[in-house]
Amino acid sequence: MYRSHTNGELTIKNVNQEVTLSGWVQKVRDKGFMIWVDLRDRYGITQLIFDEERTDKSIMELAKTLGREFVIQVTGKVIEREAKNKNIPTGEIEILVEKLTILNQAKLPPFTIEDETDGGEELRMKYRYLDMRRNPIREKMIFRSKVTMEVRNYLSNQGFIDVETPYLIKSTPEGARDFIVPSRMNAGQFYALPQSPQTFKQLLMVGGLDKYFQIVKCFRDEDLRADRQPEFTQIDCEMAFVEQEDILNVFEGLTRHLLKEVNGVAIDKFPRMTYEEAMKTYGNDKPDIRFDMKFGELNDLAQNKGFGVFDSQELVVGIAAPGCANYTRKQTDKLIDFVKQPQVGANGLIWAKYNEDGTFKSSVDKFFSQEDLAMWAERLDAKKGDLMLVMAGNANKTRTQLSVLRMEMAERLNLRNPKEFAPLWVVDFPLLEWDEETNRYHAMHHPFTSPKPEDVSLLETNPGKVRANAYDLVLNGNEIGGGSIRIFDKTMQSRMFDLLGFTKEEAQNQFGFLMNAFEYGAPPHGGLAFGLDRLVAILGGQESIRDFIAFPKNNSGRDVMIDAPANIDNSQLNELYLQLNYEKKDS
Amino acid sequence: MYRSHTNGELTIKNVNQEVTLSGWVQKVRDKGFMIWVDLRDRYGITQLIFDEERTDKSIMELAKTLGREFVIQVTGKVIEREAKNKNIPTGEIEILVEKLTILNQAKLPPFTIEDETDGGEELRMKYRYLDMRRNPIREKMIFRSKVTMEVRNYLSNQGFIDVETPYLIKSTPEGARDFIVPSRMNAGQFYALPQSPQTFKQLLMVGGLDKYFQIVKCFRDEDLRADRQPEFTQIDCEMAFVEQEDILNVFEGLTRHLLKEVNGVAIDKFPRMTYEEAMKTYGNDKPDIRFDMKFGELNDLAQNKGFGVFDSQELVVGIAAPGCANYTRKQTDKLIDFVKQPQVGANGLIWAKYNEDGTFKSSVDKFFSQEDLAMWAERLDAKKGDLMLVMAGNANKTRTQLSVLRMEMAERLNLRNPKEFAPLWVVDFPLLEWDEETNRYHAMHHPFTSPKPEDVSLLETNPGKVRANAYDLVLNGNEIGGGSIRIFDKTMQSRMFDLLGFTKEEAQNQFGFLMNAFEYGAPPHGGLAFGLDRLVAILGGQESIRDFIAFPKNNSGRDVMIDAPANIDNSQLNELYLQLNYEKKDS
Repeated sequence: MYRSHTNGELTIKNVNQEVTLSGWVQKVRDKGFMIWVDLRDRYGITQLIFDEERTDKSIMELAKTLGREFVIQVTGKVIEREAKNKNIPTGEIEILVEKLTILNQAKLPPFTIEDETDGGEELRMKYRYLDMRRNPIREKMIFRSKVTMEVRNYLSNQGFIDVETPYLIKSTPEGARDFIVPSRMNAGQFYALPQSPQTFKQLLMVGGLDKYFQIVKCFRDEDLRADRQPEFTQIDCEMAFVEQEDILNVFEGLTRHLLKEVNGVAIDKFPRMTYEEAMKTYGNDKPDIRFDMKFGELNDLAQNKGFGVFDSQELVVGIAAPGCANYTRKQTDKLIDFVKQPQVGANGLIWAKYNEDGTFKSSVDKFFSQEDLAMWAERLDAKKGDLMLVMAGNANKTRTQLSVLRMEMAERLNLRNPKEFAPLWVVDFPLLEWDEETNRYHAMHHPFTSPKPEDVSLLETNPGKVRANAYDLVLNGNEIGGGSIRIFDKTMQSRMFDLLGFTKEEAQNQFGFLMNAFEYGAPPHGGLAFGLDRLVAILGGQESIRDFIAFPKNNSGRDVMIDAPANIDNSQLNELYLQLNYEKKDS
Repeated sequence: MYRSHTNGELTIKNVNQEVTLSGWVQKVRDKGFMIWVDLRDRYGITQLIFDEERTDKSIMELAKTLGREFVIQVTGKVIEREAKNKNIPTGEIEILVEKLTILNQAKLPPFTIEDETDGGEELRMKYRYLDMRRNPIREKMIFRSKVTMEVRNYLSNQGFIDVETPYLIKSTPEGARDFIVPSRMNAGQFYALPQSPQTFKQLLMVGGLDKYFQIVKCFRDEDLRADRQPEFTQIDCEMAFVEQEDILNVFEGLTRHLLKEVNGVAIDKFPRMTYEEAMKTYGNDKPDIRFDMKFGELNDLAQNKGFGVFDSQELVVGIAAPGCANYTRKQTDKLIDFVKQPQVGANGLIWAKYNEDGTFKSSVDKFFSQEDLAMWAERLDAKKGDLMLVMAGNANKTRTQLSVLRMEMAERLNLRNPKEFAPLWVVDFPLLEWDEETNRYHAMHHPFTSPKPEDVSLLETNPGKVRANAYDLVLNGNEIGGGSIRIFDKTMQSRMFDLLGFTKEEAQNQFGFLMNAFEYGAPPHGGLAFGLDRLVAILGGQESIRDFIAFPKNNSGRDVMIDAPANIDNSQLNELYLQLNYEKKDS
């Protein structure tokens, strides 16, 4: 037996008990005649004391050899501390050590194992097993475990069945790139890793399972942007005999439960907003509504006043940044630089200060009177002391650019409080989006999403206008989940594949099994998937997902700890009927 | 809203309520003036009634078009049935239908959706979404979900943290064959899918997580024997600062909990047996101890009695099959044929009947007296009425052959009662086993398993004799879990790789990250993994795992429903710097 107690549980009540503890040496304070050691494990820190007068000489000497991160086992008596530490549960006691065993030595770690470490990201990833000894990382992993248990228990209690769908499935070139897996037993053929269990969960509904969930890894071979992972985790759900309203209610319930149990935050009804409204009001289909700065359209107020920059544009639109009327010229110039950088791509930015004295001062005073600017202020809901920021141009692009600026202002103003939670349903997404590059429609959600019945007639005449029974759950400006009511009729599904540019043969080849299934009595069904990594990060008050993943990959898709991917033996390739060919790449 | 109630919940208490139900048409009985429909969903069956006198003519006519597996929605009034069915919860009521909507039509299913279906295995797999509408399959999937929830809750309550380890890892040629995944972003390099999260869970222990669990998919590209799957699920666990005893206690607790909660079976302490004892007593390291027929060794009693077949052999060993003394000559001949078939491979079989009258009759009466046979009976614990079955030959081979015969007799005698549960820990496995083919030692469990401290000195002199800190949990003759206390010292781990024939470079290349981790303060640790598919099947009273997997693959590793694996576009291969090459296979 390595321990009678953990390092987080002994208190003043245990005084005089003989205990055995194991753990890592967090810190050694050697005063010569007396040595204190902080012994650490997952559960806490317990102070050990070695004392010339009370400890065996041999043990005293062994204690002097201890270094950081040594793994030791001690037996001794719990005694009351002289200098108490009220900050930790074990702070009133220490262990007078009678026996000491070094279970394993440790080289000096490449970075300090402290809450604030000196290790850079790459180094911490390479030694992830040391990084996770630090409280912030360990706590995030425990937090994730707690969230998933809450999810499972909640959905289980609601009658959802946890079903494992297969990982070795079939490649479907639609959507993102698949990771493929060569089959040895089926020469020249390949499995693909699932981008999501979409078709399988639909088949579970055809199979009568009624309510399904799974916390499942998914895979996308995309060029990795910051904070994307080639493998990521979904809370995947599907229900039969439901309408959109049923699904929103269930998953609003789940999210409310998590916010309550995990964050202690009670939120009543989640607000809802159409996609169209979100785009018009926030320039974004995942608006952060913890703060206002809603868009105000100024075309009628700002055009034809002699300011040519506005006159010719499709949209003039602005926001009011609260309390920023005191921005200096330097600060407003920086904002202009910000929107002009290539990542944002705006041509410029107009500003107008609503001063505390009720007057206005703007970068376009030549063209707009105090009365004009007062009307802007009313439209943008600006108060005295606010700074109005106005952009003009192509409607869609300008909204997107102003949305970026809105988020930037929120960051500057510390309006993105990670302890505050503002969920929002965005509904009525478009069914299709036009892709300039391929010159055809793409499914905005995926090809299995159903159009709104009242818009079906538009499929022939104006497909871009068709709204889908699709919805996203947004939390603090992040899409944490999305889903739709599915097509459950073979004819409609086939028509959808036509619209998306599939030939009949391609559709049959890739999704024939699903369309066949629809012929044997498919029920109406729909569902939703949450991105678990993101959800956990946001509930945990962070936006970066990496620290919430035990063994993340870097932006090249590499695991720098185990050094994967790696070369493999030619014999392995031979068995798979494959050979490397670097030349054909550009063909 | 598609339904106000499910088809399993309406009872006599709901009479006169107006309800809406949805589901599948299980059966239609059309008497012309009256039509009954059994409406089915996951939760049960509710009877609908359409009645010439009380139902609208148009609805009556629509009802006449209903076929099996149509998906419908009805609204009507709950009324008391005349002919009650006491076998189902809803058997006292029926719904007098007022509104009927056909939500989806259904082609005639390729097999009947009944508990006993006429569909063969291959057909059922191709239409798995129809197969799972059948009670036996649906119940198994719900059962699996229940088992996994119990596992998670139990381990969570014990302080285990659910951590997701990566699926895209590195190929290690040791052990079974890996599935590999070409990396597009890292030209010419490959990930591998994990055969288990072994090294990662050990790193979690090095990282101080203390107690880890995960229910996780694992992958092995093996030639599939019946009832093996290329992807399978493990309950994977690891603990730090533990000895074997700690681990056995925790997972005995888990298994006891499952037997109690899932099967309502209370089992106290699980028996334990060494590997050596299991082999000597049952010829098998996963003995089914629901029944006896223990091996008795007869060398001292049966050799040198003039029966040459016995005299020259290493081992003479037998069992007593209870109540089989009345076997006819034809039956004993069949047993002899059974052991002689190539799958068993024995040279022959001697039988001796212990008759009810106390006399013996054997196939070797010429050589053995009644007194001789009486001594056999005592050794084999044979009672009057039993049939003794004796084999001789090389010790290991003969034990294995007799073990097969023992199981065969148990099947014939219906001793393998699926409702009875007999768990058993088998401990002290050998560390290594000699492989004739490669002429070197293989790790019996895996290369990370620690030798018993008292046997370490044998590593130099007689490696085959070294016992490991390794253990299996056996349930009803199936290994459902196994694990070990791990090596946590770099020197010992490196020595183990030497023994297993790794060069220093190979060891460093494949497992350098783990050995490096051991240098930074690795705690003693160990763990265990349960095969979830098998565990669930056995708890469910079955030995075949396939029906407990939602979408299983066939013996060629194919998913016949979605038709995977499949060919992929050359452009996909090009992107991965690969081309097909059928010729090199045999090089």
